[in-house]
Amino acid sequence: MEFHEIYLLYRHELDRVERLLDERAHADHVDLAKAGRTLLEAGGKRIRPLFALICGLGEREWSEDVAKIAAALEMIHMATLVHDDVIDRADLRRGKPTVRKSYGNLAAMYTGDYLFARAIQLLAEVDNLEVHRLMARGIVLLCEGEIEQIEDFYNWSQGVMTYLRRIHRKTALLISLSCQLGAMVGGAPEREVAALARFGHAVGMAFQIVDDLLDFTGAAEIVGKPVGGDLRQGNLTLPALLAASRPGFGERLRALVREGMREEEAEEAIRLVVASGALADAERLAERYLEKSRHLLQAVNRETVREQLMGLTSFIIRRQY
Amino acid sequence: MEFHEIYLLYRHELDRVERLLDERAHADHVDLAKAGRTLLEAGGKRIRPLFALICGLGEREWSEDVAKIAAALEMIHMATLVHDDVIDRADLRRGKPTVRKSYGNLAAMYTGDYLFARAIQLLAEVDNLEVHRLMARGIVLLCEGEIEQIEDFYNWSQGVMTYLRRIHRKTALLISLSCQLGAMVGGAPEREVAALARFGHAVGMAFQIVDDLLDFTGAAEIVGKPVGGDLRQGNLTLPALLAASRPGFGERLRALVREGMREEEAEEAIRLVVASGALADAERLAERYLEKSRHLLQAVNRETVREQLMGLTSFIIRRQY
Repeated sequence: MEFHEIYLLYRHELDRVERLLDERAHADHVDLAKAGRTLLEAGGKRIRPLFALICGLGEREWSEDVAKIAAALEMIHMATLVHDDVIDRADLRRGKPTVRKSYGNLAAMYTGDYLFARAIQLLAEVDNLEVHRLMARGIVLLCEGEIEQIEDFYNWSQGVMTYLRRIHRKTALLISLSCQLGAMVGGAPEREVAALARFGHAVGMAFQIVDDLLDFTGAAEIVGKPVGGDLRQGNLTLPALLAASRPGFGERLRALVREGMREEEAEEAIRLVVASGALADAERLAERYLEKSRHLLQAVNRETVREQLMGLTSFIIRRQY
Repeated sequence: MEFHEIYLLYRHELDRVERLLDERAHADHVDLAKAGRTLLEAGGKRIRPLFALICGLGEREWSEDVAKIAAALEMIHMATLVHDDVIDRADLRRGKPTVRKSYGNLAAMYTGDYLFARAIQLLAEVDNLEVHRLMARGIVLLCEGEIEQIEDFYNWSQGVMTYLRRIHRKTALLISLSCQLGAMVGGAPEREVAALARFGHAVGMAFQIVDDLLDFTGAAEIVGKPVGGDLRQGNLTLPALLAASRPGFGERLRALVREGMREEEAEEAIRLVVASGALADAERLAERYLEKSRHLLQAVNRETVREQLMGLTSFIIRRQY
């Protein structure tokens, strides 16, 4: 099943989520309202809401709670993006100026806080304490992941395991929660909820690895940010770490990528990562996670749901390249 | 009842709250752990936990849930302080270097996020959805209050009402929630819970007005930050707004306090506020809130609880000056 078909199939549900985002992320304060508006209009693929909707609704009847979970997850995601952009000093996201670029770091900090708070408020409308517990734990780990990312900037002594742990917290967890909480609130059987949590994790890992690959391979005008941006700011992702483990590349990369490196050094480093063949290895790891996710779907009884989830997952790994 | 007596009376409960803070704000990450440690050691008067403990326990039996509420409220308070210091570019708090001074603005942003997340996680252990709803709403308003404060920097067209609305959100709400949620989780009758919520609001308003007064009257070594710090950074508090409404003072203050003012101008402005007699007026307003809070306590049946709450409240308004 293709992405646009899934999108069409869930258009009413997604529309409800958009309206929830619009209503609930709304603020009376001018700057905040403008920043929120900028964020909403910048859009995004609404991957997390879609996973929640598919896992939570599938062929079941409409549940407003699933829509609330979907919107809350997207708001938490948006909040982390806004704070991320402060950390990364990012000027562009999805080809548009970031909140911090348009309104400054302080406004971005509070826009993020506000979105977090609004997400938690929306979640509090769902009568399920287990949802709160899982989400709260998720947010804690998400924060830890963000902090690890800062601590690991330019840290060449980290291995691939450190990277995997970081992206688990930074990305996979929220996608896993989208599937798990969607299924839970939608009333799926326990065994399916557990399988969907693991499915979401595997998809999320693949998703982040692909995202990190795109940073090396994607054209700036498609990805909406400059190529090699991660490496330029010392964020050592899978391609860089795999390249560094190859004889003849590690030493040169370590010598080039350090705080205060010059533009020519950054470009040389990006060329080295590409030349090392690490991109193909990274892609293979993403595919392994994807296969694992497909395997986990066998625990889901409804065939249409399996097809939709596989369609969405394939789209994620295929996008842009 | 004196503050130290209340403190002694609740020493075991406060100790439990300290241990919860210590356990739950704990992080594996070096920087985060250090920042959290710095914050915990900087202490604070634990006003919010005390209100929650008195309202929630009083003469009732021990409830771990009340301790969790108390600790969560303090963590949320700490999170806002850390983010506040980023906004205010503050180097000192309670006479000690702030997180942002010691570890940088980015680490401070994430320390705040992390504390927020941990607070929500702790709250999620309490089986009461109404608590989550009230707290979530409170956090949203708290964020809005912080943003209003930024928007209102150097804004001389704001009146006292704007100030009161801002401090309601920024301060009074969390103290109100401490009383309300403590009482609710502790099993107080509904009428008492409602009265304690309003009591906490009145106390919180008085508390913030006194805090803003101290910024003009307190010696730097007691308050732990330079005198007139609010005015220096364009944060127009009650004394400044009241002074500006007095004939002969308004125009001069408006001319002096603007972005990029010089040190002599700031000092002149502080002298003007003091000379205007506005401090006594601000003090009177704080006392009116205090009286209102005492009046609201009549709805509380237990005399010892009333005495303890009055003692704590008097301490708040009398401290340091």
